[in-house]
Amino acid sequence: MKLSFKAVDLQLKYPFTIANFSRTSTPLMMTTIEYDGLKGYGEASMPPYLGESHESAANFLSKIDLNQFSSPENHDEILAYVDAIAPGNPAAKASVDIALHDLLGKLKNEPCYKMFNADPATMPATSCTIGIDTAEVVRKKVAETAPFQFLKVKLGRDNDKEMIETIRSMTDKPLYVDANQGWKDKHEALDMMHWLAEHGVVFVEQAMPKTMVDENAWLTEHSPLPTFGDEAVQRFADVDRAKGVYTGVNIKLMKCTGMWEASRMIKRARELDLKIMIGCMSETSCAIMAAAALAPLCDYADLDGPWLTINKPLYDPELVEGKIVLPNEPGLGLRWR
Amino acid sequence: MKLSFKAVDLQLKYPFTIANFSRTSTPLMMTTIEYDGLKGYGEASMPPYLGESHESAANFLSKIDLNQFSSPENHDEILAYVDAIAPGNPAAKASVDIALHDLLGKLKNEPCYKMFNADPATMPATSCTIGIDTAEVVRKKVAETAPFQFLKVKLGRDNDKEMIETIRSMTDKPLYVDANQGWKDKHEALDMMHWLAEHGVVFVEQAMPKTMVDENAWLTEHSPLPTFGDEAVQRFADVDRAKGVYTGVNIKLMKCTGMWEASRMIKRARELDLKIMIGCMSETSCAIMAAAALAPLCDYADLDGPWLTINKPLYDPELVEGKIVLPNEPGLGLRWR
Repeated sequence: MKLSFKAVDLQLKYPFTIANFSRTSTPLMMTTIEYDGLKGYGEASMPPYLGESHESAANFLSKIDLNQFSSPENHDEILAYVDAIAPGNPAAKASVDIALHDLLGKLKNEPCYKMFNADPATMPATSCTIGIDTAEVVRKKVAETAPFQFLKVKLGRDNDKEMIETIRSMTDKPLYVDANQGWKDKHEALDMMHWLAEHGVVFVEQAMPKTMVDENAWLTEHSPLPTFGDEAVQRFADVDRAKGVYTGVNIKLMKCTGMWEASRMIKRARELDLKIMIGCMSETSCAIMAAAALAPLCDYADLDGPWLTINKPLYDPELVEGKIVLPNEPGLGLRWR
Repeated sequence: MKLSFKAVDLQLKYPFTIANFSRTSTPLMMTTIEYDGLKGYGEASMPPYLGESHESAANFLSKIDLNQFSSPENHDEILAYVDAIAPGNPAAKASVDIALHDLLGKLKNEPCYKMFNADPATMPATSCTIGIDTAEVVRKKVAETAPFQFLKVKLGRDNDKEMIETIRSMTDKPLYVDANQGWKDKHEALDMMHWLAEHGVVFVEQAMPKTMVDENAWLTEHSPLPTFGDEAVQRFADVDRAKGVYTGVNIKLMKCTGMWEASRMIKRARELDLKIMIGCMSETSCAIMAAAALAPLCDYADLDGPWLTINKPLYDPELVEGKIVLPNEPGLGLRWR
């Protein structure tokens, strides 16, 4: 087995702005694992604020030696080896995991979703995110999300109600809210939850900082809306910690090192009776199709990456009634342009 | 007091290469603090593998509100506030610390080195780094370091002896070695130490991974050369941990949040009878002059940033006999181009 990788900058449709600094692209590392004439494809998406970069991924991936494994079949053993090489690097690890699963599917002539016993019939509709922006740009963004049945809104700034009202002036679609740890007071957060419930919001992600464990638990207990842990939920062990604090967990391949660990997190969350959403970063259809293969096992999907980017190396996933269609093809069924 | 900041890419004279990925610049954040008609200048240098970025720095710096402080005089209080805003972000914090000290010096009409009781007469000569490269390029690099009395060599790959022999074929200057955690076996490391001692090496930084505490202590005990902790020494608390493990510590402003904490680390290292070197990242003369102001308190200096970069916003520091000259001017005595 041979691993190779290539640095790519994924151009964003809308710049990501903090203070006086704007980012117009997200660094990706596209990986390939070759075995027996077949190629599996993977992807790491590394928004800089999470600490990974082209450089850290190149450094990590260059330490991996897959020659010691005779075939991709023992994927749990291979992924345990990759995980143990160094701490951190979850997106770089996910890029190996995704490529390995795509390869395995091709080798077994089986779609990835079948390998995880996911039934396309239970695929949830995916939401599409509307980033914080001026009212004028927000209107344009809402118009562009016509194919989606659910919209996701990022709040946690000083114009939260204005954002919701602007969107509500254009559409009645149900909204998912991501507060990105933006609210600091549990009583104000609860007031906001009630207001949001009256404005067609379905649930709220990471209302308060993840370190405010007791306050998040209190909010979940009193809130009229379900709460989801996002920043609080990175890897497997975090699922148990989320129980009693949030209604559910937001699982992302780039946080949890890939499909294998994500599938274990989904299983554990079900055992704990936690709700499950599967989310994404700015990603191409490669990583999105990997998450989509697991999405039928989840309650909610937020897999909008390809629709918010410009230089697409793959075709966008097919959408039917706002749901990503899982192709009945070996592996991830990726369609390169 | 008003803080502002600007993202800059510092172009490297020689690309930094890992596996098949090359980096040709380092992201900087240049900061300014204005007070009473005076401006203090600071800098964050953020090599991506350390996890900070333009984005993380913009996010962190935008949370700082200096309006709550009536003057820059209570700099320890201000810096404690900045440090407590969020964990991590050492380079972004250093950019505030450096700007504050430059401003304070201008306010008091005093050079920064005097504020720290550093005597320019005890300034150590600075080394200049020769990066790993082909023999041909290494020869070119050695020729360019004529103004320096000491060279620093990065080892820890598979061609360590070849690197040293190539340099030794051109110059007899004493060498500092940075192994960057590259050696994994203490006996092999000790053999290498003996070989290096015979080839005019003065000391070795971070011979083995920082997590191999017992092995590093064993190596220090048996080695003919002094050992320095680099990756092992980030902030104040790490100085005590270095005692008994290394002969000395490598202090860098970008690791330890700036001049104030660096000065405390130097004092503590002296109390513990640890040797002290002060180092740098790819930095402009702004951050380098901040480190240089503390360098007379240290045994060794490795402050070569400006000479290894291209787009210089400031003039290079003046060198006399390989030592950086500390100008008798208020603050850091920066000379903008």
